[in-house]
This record gives sequence, C-alpha cells and structure tokens, in this order.
Amino acid sequence: MTKETVDQILKFRDDRNWKQFHNPKDLAISISLEAAELLEVFQWSAEDTVCEKKIEKVKEELADVINYCVLMADACDLDMDEIVQAKIKVNNQKYPVDKAYGNKEKYNEL
Amino acid sequence: MTKETVDQILKFRDDRNWKQFHNPKDLAISISLEAAELLEVFQWSAEDTVCEKKIEKVKEELADVINYCVLMADACDLDMDEIVQAKIKVNNQKYPVDKAYGNKEKYNEL
Amino acid sequence: MTKETVDQILKFRDDRNWKQFHNPKDLAISISLEAAELLEVFQWSAEDTVCEKKIEKVKEELADVINYCVLMADACDLDMDEIVQAKIKVNNQKYPVDKAYGNKEKYNEL
Amino acid sequence: MTKETVDQILKFRDDRNWKQFHNPKDLAISISLEAAELLEVFQWSAEDTVCEKKIEKVKEELADVINYCVLMADACDLDMDEIVQAKIKVNNQKYPVDKAYGNKEKYNEL
Repeated sequence: MTKETVDQILKFRDDRNWKQFHNPKDLAISISLEAAELLEVFQWSAEDTVCEKKIEKVKEELADVINYCVLMADACDLDMDEIVQAKIKVNNQKYPVDKAYGNKEKYNEL
Repeated sequence: MTKETVDQILKFRDDRNWKQFHNPKDLAISISLEAAELLEVFQWSAEDTVCEKKIEKVKEELADVINYCVLMADACDLDMDEIVQAKIKVNNQKYPVDKAYGNKEKYNEL
Repeated sequence: MTKETVDQILKFRDDRNWKQFHNPKDLAISISLEAAELLEVFQWSAEDTVCEKKIEKVKEELADVINYCVLMADACDLDMDEIVQAKIKVNNQKYPVDKAYGNKEKYNEL
Repeated sequence: MTKETVDQILKFRDDRNWKQFHNPKDLAISISLEAAELLEVFQWSAEDTVCEKKIEKVKEELADVINYCVLMADACDLDMDEIVQAKIKVNNQKYPVDKAYGNKEKYNEL
C-alpha cells in the first residue's frame, strides 16, 4: 500500500476532525465490526470461491478493515511495516517450514 | 506499507505451501478472529488510552489482522490501494465534510 | 435453559463482586470475543460437520457465549424469553414461510 | 429461558425447512455476525450505560445472538443447561472466589 493511500486515509479523518474520537478501544471495535461485515459476504456460502460473484462487496468491506487498521496504527503511533515484519519473524519460529509445509494445523498442534 | 513487507507475507505463505488453504471464506474468518484478539486487549479496560501499557500485544495482533488482509487481497486478486482509494471516494459522499465535521454519528444519522 | 442455570451464572458473578464491571459495552465486547473463540473451532475446517470431533471445544465456547448473553440480559434488565419471542415475531414478517421455505437468501433478497 | 421459547425458535426454522443449511460452521459464523451487530450499538459510545437510550436495538441484537445459540446447540445435539453448568464448574476452578473477588484480571494473571 502506498504512502499516498495512507495519506488519503488520514486526510479523510483530519478533514472531519475525527481524530478526537479515535481512541484505541473504539478503533479495535471498529476493526472487528468491519471484519464481521466482510465475513457476512460468506455466510451460508457453500462455495468457498465466491470471489467472482460477490467481489464488489468484498472490495468494499476489505477496504474498510484496512482503513481502520491504518487509523489504529496511526492512533497508537505504530509503523505498519515494522510490526508486520516483526510478527513474520515470530511466526517463522512458530511455524518452521519443515513442520508446517502443506500443513494447516495450528503451531501448538504441529 | 512497502512492497517488501507484502512480499514477505506472501513468501511466508508460499514457503509453507499454504495457498491451497486460502479460500476467501476461511480468510474472512481469520481476519475476524485476529480482530477479536486485538479487541481482547481492550476488554474491561476503562482507560481508552491503554496503548502505552499493552502496546506489545497491540503490535502483534494488529500485525496479524494486516497480514490476513494482505492474504485476502492476494487470494481475491485485489489491489489494496485501488480498493481503499475507491472506498474513500464512496465515504466522501456518505460523510460530507460540512455535515460530518466533529460529528461521530453514522452517515444515516447525519 | 432453566432458571437454576441462570441463577448459577448470576451467583458466580455475585460471589466475585463482578457486577460493578459489567457495563453493557464491555459485555457486548465479551460476547463478541467468545463468539470468535467458538468460530475458531471451525477455522480452516472443510468439513462442516466437525461437531463430533471438536465437540468438547464447541461445548465450552458455546457455553461462554450463552453465559455472557445471560449477564448482558441481566445488566440491561431484559427478559430473555420476551426479547426472543418479540424478535421471532419480527422475523416472521421478514421471512414469510411461502417465500423463505428452503431458501437461505437474506430477507432483503427474497 | 423457557422450553416454549426454544420450541418457537426451532419451529421457526422447521417451518422454513432451514435445518438443511444449519451446519455448525455457518452457525458459528452467524453467532459472530450477530454479536458484532450487538457490539455496533456501543461503537464510539463513551457512556457505558447506554442501555436506556439504545435499548430497543440491544433487545433485537441480543435476541439474535441467543436465537443462533439455541440453533447451534440443537444442531450439535447439546443441552444448554448441561454445557453451561459444566463450564461454571471449570470457571470456579479458574477463578477461585478469594483471588477473583472484585478483581477483573484474567485467570492467568490472577
């Protein structure tokens, strides 16, 4: 995601003077709510590859989740690249390639 | 978020041959579950500015949400910048600055 | 669910003097978190009928959701039978038998 | 909750021939989605005691969560009283009264 996109998200917030409402707890709630709206697209859907059919809804709801993640990172003064790369390092320990290859079990069941 | 970070996320998946499991429905479930783990940090917390205190947990859980958003976008062949910028345009209509300024009501109550 | 079970839930809370923490917002968060833990049982599970295999986990997590629903109803002074029966009436309007029979579409798509 | 209410929930389902769709995975998704709709009532709400004001919405959404819990229990052939009482026993071990009294910390931090 480009810096330009991130800047558009923050500008949208600042144009409306909304930063005052963006405490971490309510932002975490908002991420959860948007994630639920994304999940709703797949409720009762047997076919797991509904992407084509419901793609417009997926685009909108996934964008909403990402949007709030950017706002959360900003509110908590976190660098997205830094925290994601740090987590990948942790996951590399939890899911060593030789044990996890082609295996969808959770790390504590590997 | 840099292309390098995105590439690390996809490489992690491909090194483990996990793409086969990444259908959109289960990815949407995963985003929801990680969002809940992020929200759990703030359960029962009166103080809305817990960021300092619980920041390590926030970093990890927010990283997990972002991680799955990247995987979802990839699985559905979506460009994150494109969908986020498109959604900002929609939100600009829903939340005109003059009505939304300093106002946290939902668009349908503005 | 018997009154005895409900009373056990409330007694558990009162024995620990926890009512003071049970504001509706945090209870709603708690219901969401427990619902996510229940959903986690089915993450990546292709087989939709995992009930047998993972039944012990389902029992625990479903119990947690129900537990918090009872606490929420109590905190908001709501009668569970009353609100559920009222909602069934609403749903009867939204999903008339002749249109909804054997049809899993949402009411606004019927 | 009376047996009559539970029977109304099951009758609603059976009148529409919906049991065929009620696999545990999609029911778990549904519980999560309804929990999110309940939580949405409290998004951005500073006042934790919004019950009065938004009570009608709380009634509807809490009823939806309970409704799906009953359907989940039925689909997995679980007795709600049994699983809830069993979980209370577990929680009694995790949260001994002397340590948990007036203390909202998680059991692993007691």
